[in-house]
Amino acid sequence: MKLYSYFRSSAAYRVRIALNLKGIAYEQVPVNLLKGEDQGEDYRKLNPQGLVPALITADGQVLIQSLAICEYLEEHYPDPPLLPAAAPGRARVRALADLIACDIHPLNNLRVLKYLTGTLGVDKEQKIAWYQHWVVEGFTALEALLADSPDTGRFCHGDQPTLADVCLVPQVANAQRLACELSPYPTIQRISAACDALPAFAQAHPSQQPDTV
Amino acid sequence: MKLYSYFRSSAAYRVRIALNLKGIAYEQVPVNLLKGEDQGEDYRKLNPQGLVPALITADGQVLIQSLAICEYLEEHYPDPPLLPAAAPGRARVRALADLIACDIHPLNNLRVLKYLTGTLGVDKEQKIAWYQHWVVEGFTALEALLADSPDTGRFCHGDQPTLADVCLVPQVANAQRLACELSPYPTIQRISAACDALPAFAQAHPSQQPDTV
Repeated sequence: MKLYSYFRSSAAYRVRIALNLKGIAYEQVPVNLLKGEDQGEDYRKLNPQGLVPALITADGQVLIQSLAICEYLEEHYPDPPLLPAAAPGRARVRALADLIACDIHPLNNLRVLKYLTGTLGVDKEQKIAWYQHWVVEGFTALEALLADSPDTGRFCHGDQPTLADVCLVPQVANAQRLACELSPYPTIQRISAACDALPAFAQAHPSQQPDTV
Repeated sequence: MKLYSYFRSSAAYRVRIALNLKGIAYEQVPVNLLKGEDQGEDYRKLNPQGLVPALITADGQVLIQSLAICEYLEEHYPDPPLLPAAAPGRARVRALADLIACDIHPLNNLRVLKYLTGTLGVDKEQKIAWYQHWVVEGFTALEALLADSPDTGRFCHGDQPTLADVCLVPQVANAQRLACELSPYPTIQRISAACDALPAFAQAHPSQQPDTV
């Protein structure tokens, strides 16, 4: 498989973790977001949305959108599973993943921060406050959902990593980079540390990629 | 089933469509976002994230996050399906849905627009420009993905409504309400109109809800 990726993209980081957890070999093709390569004509031919990641599957299909890619991997390479077997657990894991992927990450994307500073003329302090605001909103809810549930185990759901952890870890790494205070979220911190101790997560970290600078 | 909903919420609108398409009876409990009822203590006990929708299932489980709810409905009530049978099609439908649910809608949510005008002091014109910017970004990509694919039919994927249409229609309704110019997106408009002609979509429209004002 071939993964169009950028070392610092949270969405690409998710797919790297999922591929690693499932033990699927892949080659990375770096797309430099800071240089705007995602917006270039060549990349847009592959993914008209001009965002990373994109995954070329073993049979040549082009897949986009990190969560849709993870669901595809789950259906094609079910072992080890990223979703629990029972429907209530599946709904919980997907909800935790979506809380991050829909309600935190899209607001703090590079393209959004660029619009804030460029078009709206927001200053650096306001930009950081914006970033931290959405992390606080999301992580406060996520901490409650994790801390108060008997379904939470070593990881977000039970004692094996799931799609929820695949989304959690890149969001935590991102929040740390932007100096968010994480002490109000002990469960999130504990789970994120448990994930980072696994090679599948560690090897997917932005600091370990071929395009890391 | 009981759906905590707000007539104008795109995420709740998605779940109403999915429930209607699958012929599942449900009672609506209105949560008035303009009055901040979603942020109230009572509602947060149900959904710590303080967002609509939340669905109480037939067996009393509380489900949150519209896409996770739709996937749950798909697994429990597979007929009629909202996802194609084959994996490449499933990945395509989920990617189209996620493009809307992750990359357009979260940026144009009420809570985000409130932060822009309240905390950042953005004026009305800038707010509308922000809204339209993310619709243009997303719909331009979506139009290309739909117009250029042989998989597109009467609906986003083939000739039966899928999860992609469930997400598309509320986003189009929302864009129309905010006076976005939709003529550059003929395929989106055509599909949206085909959906609106079906009772499952028409009955889920914000103008037809018990809390419509």
